[in-house]
Amino acid sequence: MTTVGILGGGQLARMMALSGAPLGLRFLVMDNVADACAGQFAPMVVGDYRDEAALTEFASKVDVATFDFENVPAESAHWLTDRVPVFPKPRALATAQDRLAEKTLFQELGIPVPPFAAIDTREQLDAAIAQIGAPCILKTRRLGYDGKGQFRIKTPADAGAAWDALGAQAGKVGLILEGFVHFQRELSVVAVRGRDGEFRTWPLTENWHVDGVLSASLAPARVDEATAQTAFEYARKLAESLDYVGVFALELFCRDGELLANELAPRVHNSGHWTIEGSETSQFQNHLRAVLGLPLGDTRMVGMACMLNWIGQMPDALPVLREPGGHWHDYGKEPRAGRKVGHATLRADDAGALAATLRRVGDALERADQVAPVIAALAR
Amino acid sequence: MTTVGILGGGQLARMMALSGAPLGLRFLVMDNVADACAGQFAPMVVGDYRDEAALTEFASKVDVATFDFENVPAESAHWLTDRVPVFPKPRALATAQDRLAEKTLFQELGIPVPPFAAIDTREQLDAAIAQIGAPCILKTRRLGYDGKGQFRIKTPADAGAAWDALGAQAGKVGLILEGFVHFQRELSVVAVRGRDGEFRTWPLTENWHVDGVLSASLAPARVDEATAQTAFEYARKLAESLDYVGVFALELFCRDGELLANELAPRVHNSGHWTIEGSETSQFQNHLRAVLGLPLGDTRMVGMACMLNWIGQMPDALPVLREPGGHWHDYGKEPRAGRKVGHATLRADDAGALAATLRRVGDALERADQVAPVIAALAR
Repeated sequence: MTTVGILGGGQLARMMALSGAPLGLRFLVMDNVADACAGQFAPMVVGDYRDEAALTEFASKVDVATFDFENVPAESAHWLTDRVPVFPKPRALATAQDRLAEKTLFQELGIPVPPFAAIDTREQLDAAIAQIGAPCILKTRRLGYDGKGQFRIKTPADAGAAWDALGAQAGKVGLILEGFVHFQRELSVVAVRGRDGEFRTWPLTENWHVDGVLSASLAPARVDEATAQTAFEYARKLAESLDYVGVFALELFCRDGELLANELAPRVHNSGHWTIEGSETSQFQNHLRAVLGLPLGDTRMVGMACMLNWIGQMPDALPVLREPGGHWHDYGKEPRAGRKVGHATLRADDAGALAATLRRVGDALERADQVAPVIAALAR
Repeated sequence: MTTVGILGGGQLARMMALSGAPLGLRFLVMDNVADACAGQFAPMVVGDYRDEAALTEFASKVDVATFDFENVPAESAHWLTDRVPVFPKPRALATAQDRLAEKTLFQELGIPVPPFAAIDTREQLDAAIAQIGAPCILKTRRLGYDGKGQFRIKTPADAGAAWDALGAQAGKVGLILEGFVHFQRELSVVAVRGRDGEFRTWPLTENWHVDGVLSASLAPARVDEATAQTAFEYARKLAESLDYVGVFALELFCRDGELLANELAPRVHNSGHWTIEGSETSQFQNHLRAVLGLPLGDTRMVGMACMLNWIGQMPDALPVLREPGGHWHDYGKEPRAGRKVGHATLRADDAGALAATLRRVGDALERADQVAPVIAALAR
């Protein structure tokens, strides 16, 4: 009997446990809140990720550990690594937690990125704005636990306000200035790499965000095959350089046919939720297969799939359940503004059928805005 | 938040909970053993199905109740029905629990059955053997909890031995004599009926048993469309006559092109396990949709699927996990002779590819005997 420990007990841990149960696995989830939704289907240790007593209990009960959450403190991940196998390795987490390290790695690997600069002082900020140009965004290098820390600089005259807002973070979590990309599309590669180095990707996914939160995903993305192959190559390089084990997502901007890397998510990813019903093996089961050193499952898909995220509260399920390819995912969470509480996946044989399904669901749920960009992409 | 209560905590309850989680459901499982495998993913009430205190606790915590197990005492099912909605209704359970009632219903509905006769006395047994002919099988009408109670009568001279073995049961659970059917194939309809009467079937499934236990299933069955349609019509009649709600299986013999009804299983069924990966909506989720009055999901399948049962102990998972269409199901049970501990589902685009997959898996697991009849059927 193998017990997989998951740090973080949100919907990613929940779907991981559900998809890992058929492998005969048991799960133990650690979260700092007792009502974390994964706890409805897996036993939990409740405690802060820095609480050594809780971590000790967790480590003593699991055979291998992984994450549903990339902002686990690096020292906790290292502490665990001395006690149980941990995948992905803390280095991948550390890289993803630091926007500067992440973008530097992209650059070293020859993966194009938007222009960026490390900022330690007000003078560096002014110089970087002059070099990168406005608009641009000043960000903290690390998220921390207390908010995102981003300031949009529309013109060089905003530099003072940006520094007032975030300058105090320069000496703490560090700052980075990033050029603003006028992209036409947002794409993500959801990929998995095994302990033995085997590497697979699911079909490229196209994403739409609203207020910075994923709203809809479409697979396969409506891009040419060469673009998809380039994206897969970037993901492979990244995975190999980090000796990555498990599922990750590489978020990309597509601007005038060119791909620019935006972010590495070192975990199963919202833009891969469609794989549960849309591909032979879901991202969740393949993450577990990778972490356990088992053969990776087939990532092929049949037809097309669209994932719609439910933010804040669940809409009426019936319009989705009535669709032949309609699949419902309620994470069992309390409603709360801005919270990811569930999603739906809609499958269809071709673009026309998927667009028709999206139109019906969008109309019935009065969410025409959410489905419109996907329908437009399907018409391309 | 809706909590579904399941009487019986075996693999059927386990797979039901796993497939119902995405609907936002919670589960409560009642079983008489504390280590029932569904308890790994759902909270449990441990108690005998006749224990009113345990039943009271169970009923007080659930919004609707269903079964993973058809031999729940009828009086317990009735007791529950007075307190919470129960689906399927106890009448369907009662019919399926009594071989005589079941076969009588089949006959009333015009569904062909092998010859049978109720037996109360030794004289009736002799007369029935003379009428039905040998070979035939004397069976208890009800299973009870302590063994199966079957005696195979090869010639009329075996009547005395049969009566010695089972005659004492005549006044208790009753006896039935059934003609032995020299069938070419065993088939099952796995079907679902909603609260509103909507009826759907999955593609017809062909089954192979070893020592009375399901060994392999193949979908779609290798029979002509007219046979499949006849089987579906029988299932529909049966469901309507019982005002059935939920998933059930109708087991059929196929002899010289004619279908004979063997048994009704008033629950999700081992021969429908392939639906988890092989069809748009699994039998488990559709059972829950039916029980909750939600729209039924699509039962279409793409390609073909073969389910291999693992009895006694789990074989090596790797040969299955290495197959592109290979899916593993370990129920998390302790090994025990004769126990269903897991299954594998193998999917492929066509019969040739599925046969090749089965050959590889059969060879690697040294289970050529288990896969051989399926490979032979695929070559028909």
